[in-house]
Amino acid sequence: MRRFFRHPVRLVPIGFLVAILLGTGLLMLPPMAVEPRHPSFITALFTSTSAISVSGLAVVSTPDYWSTAGLVVIAVLTQLGGLGILTGAALVILTVSRRLGLHNRLLVQAETLEYGLGNIRRLLLHIGVTVLVCETLMTIIVSGRLWLDYDYSLGRALWSAGFHSVQTFNNSGFSLYPDGLRGFSRDPWVTLPLALGGIVGGLGFPALFEAARQWRRPVRWAVATKLSIWGSLALVVVGTMAFLAIEWANRWTIGQYGVADKLLAAFGQIALARTGGIELVPATALREESYPLLIGLMFIGGGSASTAGGIKVSTFFLLAFVIWAEIRGEPDVTVGHRRVATASQRQALTVTLLSVAIVAGATTLLIAMTNHLPFQAALFEITSAFSTTGLTVGVTSALSDAGHLLLIALMYIGRVGPLTLGSAIALNTRHRLYRYAEEQPIVG
Amino acid sequence: MRRFFRHPVRLVPIGFLVAILLGTGLLMLPPMAVEPRHPSFITALFTSTSAISVSGLAVVSTPDYWSTAGLVVIAVLTQLGGLGILTGAALVILTVSRRLGLHNRLLVQAETLEYGLGNIRRLLLHIGVTVLVCETLMTIIVSGRLWLDYDYSLGRALWSAGFHSVQTFNNSGFSLYPDGLRGFSRDPWVTLPLALGGIVGGLGFPALFEAARQWRRPVRWAVATKLSIWGSLALVVVGTMAFLAIEWANRWTIGQYGVADKLLAAFGQIALARTGGIELVPATALREESYPLLIGLMFIGGGSASTAGGIKVSTFFLLAFVIWAEIRGEPDVTVGHRRVATASQRQALTVTLLSVAIVAGATTLLIAMTNHLPFQAALFEITSAFSTTGLTVGVTSALSDAGHLLLIALMYIGRVGPLTLGSAIALNTRHRLYRYAEEQPIVG
Ligand SMILES: [K+]
Ligand SMILES: [K+]
Repeated sequence: MRRFFRHPVRLVPIGFLVAILLGTGLLMLPPMAVEPRHPSFITALFTSTSAISVSGLAVVSTPDYWSTAGLVVIAVLTQLGGLGILTGAALVILTVSRRLGLHNRLLVQAETLEYGLGNIRRLLLHIGVTVLVCETLMTIIVSGRLWLDYDYSLGRALWSAGFHSVQTFNNSGFSLYPDGLRGFSRDPWVTLPLALGGIVGGLGFPALFEAARQWRRPVRWAVATKLSIWGSLALVVVGTMAFLAIEWANRWTIGQYGVADKLLAAFGQIALARTGGIELVPATALREESYPLLIGLMFIGGGSASTAGGIKVSTFFLLAFVIWAEIRGEPDVTVGHRRVATASQRQALTVTLLSVAIVAGATTLLIAMTNHLPFQAALFEITSAFSTTGLTVGVTSALSDAGHLLLIALMYIGRVGPLTLGSAIALNTRHRLYRYAEEQPIVG
Repeated sequence: MRRFFRHPVRLVPIGFLVAILLGTGLLMLPPMAVEPRHPSFITALFTSTSAISVSGLAVVSTPDYWSTAGLVVIAVLTQLGGLGILTGAALVILTVSRRLGLHNRLLVQAETLEYGLGNIRRLLLHIGVTVLVCETLMTIIVSGRLWLDYDYSLGRALWSAGFHSVQTFNNSGFSLYPDGLRGFSRDPWVTLPLALGGIVGGLGFPALFEAARQWRRPVRWAVATKLSIWGSLALVVVGTMAFLAIEWANRWTIGQYGVADKLLAAFGQIALARTGGIELVPATALREESYPLLIGLMFIGGGSASTAGGIKVSTFFLLAFVIWAEIRGEPDVTVGHRRVATASQRQALTVTLLSVAIVAGATTLLIAMTNHLPFQAALFEITSAFSTTGLTVGVTSALSDAGHLLLIALMYIGRVGPLTLGSAIALNTRHRLYRYAEEQPIVG
């Protein structure tokens, strides 16, 4: 048993579980909710899981249900969750590399190439400083706007700007307003800092630091960095254009805006909602075609080792390169003059297909549980929870306790990662000393 | 240009296209439809594509619209389509192996291991005889039953039994009855021969022949044969049990049947509808949870080089083994004491993800075209067309010409195979004489 817990691949799921349970206990304390409300265990567990996994799905109205103390706890849990994710990889490298020889590929990966083991402390410092600087900048701009142009007191402006900066930079979706940031969809001074902060937080620090260090020579970036940076850029641009095309004339969303406001709201919605889950445009009023678009973007998610979830941008685009190589009949998969290891390909495949299977299974289960919930609504909400995005089409708040437990499990699995979780349970720690003969079976 | 057409990987899509257009011309002749009907180009194209791809989707009521001559043409097109698929692989081996050195992996695959090139004629003969024997047996049993117990004349019994034997053995879904085979869902003498014939036709001849030759020693089967045979068996058993569990008390489907009839109808529905598309139970009356089940089974489809479509059973289970190896941290993917080549893994991944992308894109397109078609109905019909299954929830017959063209394209792409089609367009015929340096990017 002790041996089971000491295996490093098992530290991540256990660490998250402990943090979630501590957060749950905290949120169940009486001062956390507005009188006369008493958070049930499920409500507290859901909110704690949602905050620590930086999802932002809510079972209760965040501003109406929680007291200021509760909201501070939610903000702190979000920040801790985000930092935990960002620094987790670095710490795991340190632990793993000392103890393990072979089976650490799952968690160590390419980071070791970029940060020598002696530099872990510097890496943690870098991450902390970057987070602090970004969130402070975002808070200053947004609070200034709220103070000067919205008649907020300075204190209230700082609180609101700070809360939403923490949420958006960590790609979480809690909001102090019952309708998210819809009231600011045409205000660039609020929307742009939060959207840009969300994009930066969702790129992932390995990619972000390498891009910052080598910004003059993008050609020299590692494959993972190229995939994450250019891929995220492509998804935001293509997503915004598709959203504009679909919603251009929809009077319930952006149809009555001027052209500049349409562009701003579409960009903000894609940048913030894609991985963050805060909406500028009501999700329930979207055209039918916007749902597959958002479901696809949520499922892909953000950068590796970032606060965004999903299968990750690098996974998605790596698989696109694999497919292209196979179609072209090329023996190697090459990305920007580098051959991609088959181990990386297999890992990308596993993450993606496990994710598809989990989303499909959970959607079916949710439909069975709720008796005739429309397929699309179920798929949207399940994908949102699994990718820790936190967008909702109103399903979450209407579910039973069993439905909430399903979403809690999905946020947890989505955050830990299905591959890490599966390995934590089933990792084979024995070595096989022989190889079987190879065979090339017919498939397809 | 001439060089373009001579490349063998391009023969398959072109051959299918020519066959479809010839069938279309034939079906547009006046005697094919019942007076006063005149098949439009789209109707004829749709029906020809559906028959040659052995799908069975229909834009018009098959028994009411087409004359006996038209129905004979549909049966012949189905049989030719089925034989074309079954023998195509063998013929391609012959052509390809003479002309090409390197880039034939896509089409040749493991068959060469099992049939020496000199044996192609014997293989074709084997296939032809097997098809003839199976369909004759099915026709004899079913026509005997119809003649003796349903008051059919002998001629009508033979025609109906022969038509449905051709359809089910080739895993196609046209029927002489407006409600498919629903009227026979409780008659084992009709249901069982057709269901078993459909399963045999859907296993694929490479697997079938090896299993028949080595039936005493399943341990010695090739990996592809093991995956196809055991996988198909598992899908039928698990599918039947899941269908029973979901529909047990649904009075619109099997709820009012006795236990034995429930088992028979569930088995027949899964065996026939999964890849064949003929329904024993009305698809529109199913419980909500049955749709994800059927969508999943249709998407997986049948055996490689069989008349069933989908990504193929072997692809699906191979990927399951890949995922399991990755979760366990095993360096090799092993199936029954054989190591699976990474080329096979990459091919399975490409087929699956291309298929997911095509189904997702086409579903979105269909929703956009139809203005508020429910997501689940669109996904069901698109999956059915792409996997050449031919089940319908009533969407196909109600679509516009544009919608029909979309389904025609999907049946064509699904039959030819997205990988073969993609390669036909983009295959790189130059050789690269160097390899790039390897890199192991972070994904997931
Ligand atoms: K989120
Ligand atoms: K079919």
